[in-house]
Amino acid sequence: MKFTIHKTSGSARTGVIETAHGAIQTPVFMPVGTAATVKALSVDDLKEIGAEIILGNTYHLMLRPGAERVERLGGLHKFMNWDGPILTDSGGFQVMSLSKIRKITEAGVKFQSHIDGTEYMLSPERSIEIQHKLGATITMIFDECTPFPATHDVARESMELSLRWAKRSKDAYVERPGYGLFGIVQGSVYEDLRRISAEGLKAIGFDGMAIGGLAVGEGQDMMFKTLEHTVPHLPTDKPRYLMGVGKPLDIIGAVMRGVDMFDCVLPTRNARNGQIFTKQGAINITNAKYADDASVIDPNGGISALTKYSKAYLHHLIKANEILGCMLCTRINIYFYVNMMREIRAAIAAGQLEEYYEGMRKVFVKEEAEM
Amino acid sequence: MKFTIHKTSGSARTGVIETAHGAIQTPVFMPVGTAATVKALSVDDLKEIGAEIILGNTYHLMLRPGAERVERLGGLHKFMNWDGPILTDSGGFQVMSLSKIRKITEAGVKFQSHIDGTEYMLSPERSIEIQHKLGATITMIFDECTPFPATHDVARESMELSLRWAKRSKDAYVERPGYGLFGIVQGSVYEDLRRISAEGLKAIGFDGMAIGGLAVGEGQDMMFKTLEHTVPHLPTDKPRYLMGVGKPLDIIGAVMRGVDMFDCVLPTRNARNGQIFTKQGAINITNAKYADDASVIDPNGGISALTKYSKAYLHHLIKANEILGCMLCTRINIYFYVNMMREIRAAIAAGQLEEYYEGMRKVFVKEEAEM
Repeated sequence: MKFTIHKTSGSARTGVIETAHGAIQTPVFMPVGTAATVKALSVDDLKEIGAEIILGNTYHLMLRPGAERVERLGGLHKFMNWDGPILTDSGGFQVMSLSKIRKITEAGVKFQSHIDGTEYMLSPERSIEIQHKLGATITMIFDECTPFPATHDVARESMELSLRWAKRSKDAYVERPGYGLFGIVQGSVYEDLRRISAEGLKAIGFDGMAIGGLAVGEGQDMMFKTLEHTVPHLPTDKPRYLMGVGKPLDIIGAVMRGVDMFDCVLPTRNARNGQIFTKQGAINITNAKYADDASVIDPNGGISALTKYSKAYLHHLIKANEILGCMLCTRINIYFYVNMMREIRAAIAAGQLEEYYEGMRKVFVKEEAEM
Repeated sequence: MKFTIHKTSGSARTGVIETAHGAIQTPVFMPVGTAATVKALSVDDLKEIGAEIILGNTYHLMLRPGAERVERLGGLHKFMNWDGPILTDSGGFQVMSLSKIRKITEAGVKFQSHIDGTEYMLSPERSIEIQHKLGATITMIFDECTPFPATHDVARESMELSLRWAKRSKDAYVERPGYGLFGIVQGSVYEDLRRISAEGLKAIGFDGMAIGGLAVGEGQDMMFKTLEHTVPHLPTDKPRYLMGVGKPLDIIGAVMRGVDMFDCVLPTRNARNGQIFTKQGAINITNAKYADDASVIDPNGGISALTKYSKAYLHHLIKANEILGCMLCTRINIYFYVNMMREIRAAIAAGQLEEYYEGMRKVFVKEEAEM
């Protein structure tokens, strides 16, 4: 997996990751395809929107349809008919947030499926094995997502466990050209722990570095501060991935602090409840004021969901729980995110990222409070 | 609205209805777009599948978003971005089956919305007015759907009420070139009542004739018998529409008895539960035997939902309640129905409708029992 940086502007940079499944322009937003589908989108929709890489979830896929089944069926790419790059998370985060009962030991995590209560074990070795069976283009190490808030002692112990698991993940990983394994920096909001984690991961050696344990309630200021403490300890020549982030201003702010990759369920999940991201800010299409609004979201937009359907129609569809409402609003939001990343890359290349941030701040800072 | 018959074969015929919104090849299946959307399909999907006309529901649309609102927004075509013909039912059937409380008088039907309990009144005049505001290409008269079973006396009184309402519907209807108003024959399963109803409607004069009150539990034999009693009393030179029908063999059998138009929620509703219509019969994709089935529904099929996604993937999506499962299975089923009508038209033109029916009977008669 080759990462080439094209332009820089302060800490921000544009680049391209070349993988076995195609190239990824960075900074990039990766739509979340939890259970082998980005909810309410077909792969044709994703291609039309311009998404270059999507996420899959080890936790969800190991429960249903099962990693061994996906492998038998030719891997996740073939299974879901997506030929572009796929990044799979390691399952660590979902085990903590979704599974019913869990026991964390040095070996790994025992948990019960939230679907049917079946007991499973996830360890660094098993997580890497599952991601291999899925055929992930980018594999994530198995780590413990430190709860927030955490004392320095708790955060340190958790980070040290994650470092030991990172080493085991690396040992279990099978290298192939055009594929890659990413480390995940932990350490909560503590500068010294983030540095130790980053140094430890660098010593092991990975194809990219993720920053985990953020966007868990610490707030944007603390998140940005933690990025400022962490990014300087990451390799310059590897992609940097801020996991689970975020709102538009979170993303732009993180790009300004040197981050290259993002994922978040926000644009897909909120679409299904009628929150739409527009150039005028985030709106809630279920608001009564849109019931008679004949205007479209963006007459000059790049997809028909923006140009052909009135706000009144989208309002109606979401109010009536119509699947087409989820389909159209999801297309609109993923297009917004993909297009925002395009604009961010152009702004970096033009040395105008600050101006771009200021412009977006005027539109989004008020609306974000309502999200 | 002009109806031209091209070929006949026994009672079956092919033809074309020319409307203000384009031509409709008959026999035709009309996908049901209850609340201004065919559930889980975009209009682009409908165009790709080859649907030529869709249904809208007066009852649903009057409750939400409201007929006056749709009119203000430019009519149903513009509202839902569909430029082809739309047939709207009159609301009579849904008032009986969905609304909470109702009082039927000579004037019309008082009922409460199943959504929020608001009280509404539907009369022949109001139903026709609503359909006019929606901009329906084909408007249906407001009738009473006779319950099944009904005694001869009850069926007669209900049919006579529907006839008086048919006259009031005709009087309220505003004629425009390329638009049409259809009568609806009632009379339950009684030959004499069906004849009286048909003759009464012919005397009033309509652009097409629907056969109502069937597919309500009387069974296929009784339905076919009632068609055989009814169709001879309908004008030869007007389209004939069997409302709410049906399964593949119901449709082919009805075409053989002279019917030109059909609608049914079966292919859309069942798709969302994983029942898929294939050339090998109806299958339930949630069946465990499909969990590892790497084959696609039809490698030579006309849409990507048939050719690009394995049965195992469709199985997974429906089991996991993924919206994409509804999207793909609905495309598959509506394509099956639209394509079946194409094959029926070709079989009529070739004088081979009996052979086509026999071929389909071998595939579907067993599976239909499982529906």
